[in-house]
Amino acid sequence: MKNHLCRASHAAACLALISIAASACEQPDGKSGNPTSTAATAAAPASIDDIIKARNLTPDEAMAALKVFVPPGKYDEFIMFTSGGHRGSVMMYGIPSMRLLKEIPVFSPDSWQGWGQGETESQHILEDGSWGKGTPTLTWGDLHHPQLSLTNGKYDGEWIAVSDKSAGRVGIISLKDLKTKSIFKTPNMTSDHHALWTDDSEYLIQSAYFPAPFREANGYAGIEEYAAKYRGVASFLKFDRKTGRVVPAESFQMELPPYFQDMSILGRGPSEGLLFINSINTELSTGGTLEKKPAMEVGASQKEMDYLHVINWKKALELSRDKAKVTAVNGINVISLQTAKDDGLIHFVPESKSPHGVDLVPGGEYVVVSGKLDPHVSVYSVAKIKKAISDKTFEGKDEHGIPILKYDACIEAHIPTGLGPLHSVFDADGNGYTSHFLDSTVVKWTIGPPYNTPDKAWKVTDKVSVHYNIGHLQAPGSNTKKPWGKYLVALNKWSVDRYPAMGPLHPQNLQLIDISGPKMVLLSDTPTLGEPHNSMIMPVELLQAWTTYPETGWNAAKMAKSEVATAQGKESIVREGNTVTVHGTVMRSHFTPDIVRVKQGDKVIFHWTNVESARDATHGFGLHGYNVNLSVDPGATESAEVVVTQPGVYPFYCTEFCSALHMEMTGWLLVEPQ
Amino acid sequence: MKNHLCRASHAAACLALISIAASACEQPDGKSGNPTSTAATAAAPASIDDIIKARNLTPDEAMAALKVFVPPGKYDEFIMFTSGGHRGSVMMYGIPSMRLLKEIPVFSPDSWQGWGQGETESQHILEDGSWGKGTPTLTWGDLHHPQLSLTNGKYDGEWIAVSDKSAGRVGIISLKDLKTKSIFKTPNMTSDHHALWTDDSEYLIQSAYFPAPFREANGYAGIEEYAAKYRGVASFLKFDRKTGRVVPAESFQMELPPYFQDMSILGRGPSEGLLFINSINTELSTGGTLEKKPAMEVGASQKEMDYLHVINWKKALELSRDKAKVTAVNGINVISLQTAKDDGLIHFVPESKSPHGVDLVPGGEYVVVSGKLDPHVSVYSVAKIKKAISDKTFEGKDEHGIPILKYDACIEAHIPTGLGPLHSVFDADGNGYTSHFLDSTVVKWTIGPPYNTPDKAWKVTDKVSVHYNIGHLQAPGSNTKKPWGKYLVALNKWSVDRYPAMGPLHPQNLQLIDISGPKMVLLSDTPTLGEPHNSMIMPVELLQAWTTYPETGWNAAKMAKSEVATAQGKESIVREGNTVTVHGTVMRSHFTPDIVRVKQGDKVIFHWTNVESARDATHGFGLHGYNVNLSVDPGATESAEVVVTQPGVYPFYCTEFCSALHMEMTGWLLVEPQ
Repeated sequence: MKNHLCRASHAAACLALISIAASACEQPDGKSGNPTSTAATAAAPASIDDIIKARNLTPDEAMAALKVFVPPGKYDEFIMFTSGGHRGSVMMYGIPSMRLLKEIPVFSPDSWQGWGQGETESQHILEDGSWGKGTPTLTWGDLHHPQLSLTNGKYDGEWIAVSDKSAGRVGIISLKDLKTKSIFKTPNMTSDHHALWTDDSEYLIQSAYFPAPFREANGYAGIEEYAAKYRGVASFLKFDRKTGRVVPAESFQMELPPYFQDMSILGRGPSEGLLFINSINTELSTGGTLEKKPAMEVGASQKEMDYLHVINWKKALELSRDKAKVTAVNGINVISLQTAKDDGLIHFVPESKSPHGVDLVPGGEYVVVSGKLDPHVSVYSVAKIKKAISDKTFEGKDEHGIPILKYDACIEAHIPTGLGPLHSVFDADGNGYTSHFLDSTVVKWTIGPPYNTPDKAWKVTDKVSVHYNIGHLQAPGSNTKKPWGKYLVALNKWSVDRYPAMGPLHPQNLQLIDISGPKMVLLSDTPTLGEPHNSMIMPVELLQAWTTYPETGWNAAKMAKSEVATAQGKESIVREGNTVTVHGTVMRSHFTPDIVRVKQGDKVIFHWTNVESARDATHGFGLHGYNVNLSVDPGATESAEVVVTQPGVYPFYCTEFCSALHMEMTGWLLVEPQ
Repeated sequence: MKNHLCRASHAAACLALISIAASACEQPDGKSGNPTSTAATAAAPASIDDIIKARNLTPDEAMAALKVFVPPGKYDEFIMFTSGGHRGSVMMYGIPSMRLLKEIPVFSPDSWQGWGQGETESQHILEDGSWGKGTPTLTWGDLHHPQLSLTNGKYDGEWIAVSDKSAGRVGIISLKDLKTKSIFKTPNMTSDHHALWTDDSEYLIQSAYFPAPFREANGYAGIEEYAAKYRGVASFLKFDRKTGRVVPAESFQMELPPYFQDMSILGRGPSEGLLFINSINTELSTGGTLEKKPAMEVGASQKEMDYLHVINWKKALELSRDKAKVTAVNGINVISLQTAKDDGLIHFVPESKSPHGVDLVPGGEYVVVSGKLDPHVSVYSVAKIKKAISDKTFEGKDEHGIPILKYDACIEAHIPTGLGPLHSVFDADGNGYTSHFLDSTVVKWTIGPPYNTPDKAWKVTDKVSVHYNIGHLQAPGSNTKKPWGKYLVALNKWSVDRYPAMGPLHPQNLQLIDISGPKMVLLSDTPTLGEPHNSMIMPVELLQAWTTYPETGWNAAKMAKSEVATAQGKESIVREGNTVTVHGTVMRSHFTPDIVRVKQGDKVIFHWTNVESARDATHGFGLHGYNVNLSVDPGATESAEVVVTQPGVYPFYCTEFCSALHMEMTGWLLVEPQ
């Protein structure tokens, strides 16, 4: 018992040793001669062929295994940002490994990351991004599409904008620290589908999904007044790249008819300045299943065609600066439907009814729409649409007086692809790929000139089965000027039997497909958390995130030095009346202070600064009883505020395993009874 | 434009078609002759050797790829349940693919799963599991160890118990639907480390980490009275297998000295009836960094040895039924420290200071402890401990009068393994594997007789480097009667450079290691969400979860038919005073009712029953503005209650993509102004 312990007399040296990174430690049994095994050096127990045989892999499965594996310590080639749907977050996956690298909380709290879990700045972001007016602070959102910011129509690796279908909001994530910087509750919208960037991320463009009586008092009108008083809206939100925030004063909206405006796409090249929005429910159905009226699924499926909205948004932007052309409604300038019509800002093109996806080929020459009840992909020529507008080749007007262009004057191709077509993406070689919900397939087809010669244009060239009920699909850089191709991910809504039974709620299923050859090859299945609506994929090199904060005492929300940072040695506890402020620091492996004495009823404000600069040296601050957990990343200053209504002893401790003496990184909040 | 659309006249047929699963749909372009590519049938563009060369894989990396790949549609061999730490959840991973299969929310809400997001039953579970007494409802926990329930000392695939270090709580998850059934706030404890099952899951045994003055008025005593008034506690919680709940009336506690009681392990076989608990801080340090006292990391590292608590818990159980031996404290019967001592329920064995892990070999003959400042693994013989107790081979008593057994009389082996040893697991072949935080290694060693002959006992036989700072490690069935071996997972606390920079907060790193051969082989790296403290691994066949609920109208929390289920055709909206109750159904693709008219100030109660029985046919209920999202799984009845304080039009919709007409599955909550 004498020789084998790290003796008390050596305690100081021991502590120094265990407070540093493991890499600096000696190998204590270097003399034992035991070899260190790694994947790179171990004596392998079997050959490649033996393993293939033992695991009963087919040759195609073995090839897929070798295509998707990323060896320990090596990096994936691409990063995919995928929506978490009503989980309220964004997921980051590596491609080809399909490992879930990170989840970025936006609309929902994440106690691990200290997001909305008593941390002051994130609480404010969630509160500021709620409806207000006596409704609760929202702690979820239905995050639909993550959109990577653009410079000259290409991903620039700086920001992600996300939308919330459940409340018509946009969130902004910085790719510097992968944290949310702001949530903007767009006025006059109760919902949206996504928020698109313009080609230099100057504006975010968002359309309402559910029309709303936003001009009425209290935002209320009976559903019987749907046609008269409910209206759709498109929002053009000015974005400030420096702060990661929307600038309401420079933003505007355009009133639209009360159709459900769904997905949209912005033009570029020949279609520069145009915005294309799909619509459903031009029937103006409102449901009423208990009132012997048809459900929306029937009511909104009566007409043969809905309307692709073609909006000259650059002209609308000019108009929005003319005070005579706009009215402020609930704090934002709105171009009325009448003005939009009178000034020729909007035209309709018939599209196969109840469409979901609208996509743009890389050069901007064609708009690709899929009416989900029509077993074809519809391709519109931008040149033809522009000519039809200029020639006034109308087939009539809708009931609001908006001109409808002749379908035949705009359509370029109508490709028979399969049942339930939804969305299309593009590779670098002139091919389109369309998802089919009902067929559960991805169909590959050729884009027309200038991508392929006319004889090779608009042809289906391959099809792959996916599992099951695919919604979106994505390929690197699709819908930008610069697609990379190589991989495609099918985002399947149902997994059914693809995984062991895990209870009634099934995961959705991401399938990685190799599109580098002439034929698509399904490589792997990956279950998901949440509901991954859409994603964006970029090369890993574009992600140039910080590994620690640039300055000690950093305010992550404001992306600047914190006003309440504390330097080491300057820690204090300050009482002013009933408010006690703790100016503290954290480092391996203690809090300063670690004893905080207060009285029942006090307000206690904690400001913790992580004074470490080592990569990965994060500390947590978990406070029993008062529902607080902070993640104090290297260099960060994080705050929390609680009113200690109940007396008692409330231990606090580091919740992020930081060192060999992490378990000892503890403290006490002592609340003396009044 | 005439032939290519699904015409209005066929709308009914179209709707029927798109409301069924995709598998029933015809291939519309079956005549086009395009081959369907899958991993199993595609013409491969390259050979195995070509891919290995192109991707620059070493032979060992290629073998690892082939060992971990699970082909599309096939299942993993094992399931690992891993803690999410201060994320408050449990993660399910497949082994060997290491795909994240599911996250099970326990202490923190998950809006995707409708957990704690306005759903009535889960809100009640979170409220009931909080501290009460004027402190907030907790919406996070620091979930440390998921423990699979046992029958005869082996996993039975029925329940998972989890602990919350931040509040001393236990949560119970059913493996039938992978949902949380209850959260129990254990009295007299402000924290814990884990909750262990007895060998037939009759009791959950939990020890406090932070001592607390739980006998004092208001649970308060100044930190200066730490030695006199703060006490540790071990809890013995009776578990009801039918309801998934703790039965407080049949539970009891044992008071302990104010050391920090950390991890514990229950005996079996020769150690049946004994409970072994590690302790740290026998120095009774309380920190005081701003008061010129040593931080806990120094203060709690002064003595050479801490005390392994050996508790005869079966004898304590008998005693707890004697009213003269217990006192009710805050609603639970407590055996005092005096009684525990007088009745010989507790003995101490010296252990290397500041230990973290304590583990039991499969047969129960040896207890394995790692003092994290001692570069050895300490193995105690249960037979020796029992003999020392019976012979009263004491080296003294602690200051509370608890006898301390002689170290030399209990120790069996002291194996030099490396710096910072923490935890040990076992395979089916008589080997132990110990994690080393400071060395960042897993070290393999041989257990003594009867597992190996004396000449081959207690020898280090292999070592593998991990990346970095490993905490727990796990192998299938370790710490049960029946380990399976084959794989080992290293749960590494730091990842540093193993992944692309993703901001200052790094993921932790799970590493899969092949232990099927004489030498360990590192196979793969997987980043994690949250903080995976510990895990349990079982064969996939043990998971026999429901794929839909057994009856339509199921209450998941109560695991029985819901009292508020609504049958199809029986939907209604009932007003009683200011309360409006919606008895509704959901199915592809509509709500009944889909129009709900209420007045400002009403309380609105929604009960939604999913009348579908198809696997994976989940619907969501997302309600704008009132912070509600429900996941209504096939067969489930889910409820939400809101007070509509603010007038307006609040659309609701299905948040889980359910069908081709999912986008049309909408409704309106119309709140008329007062």
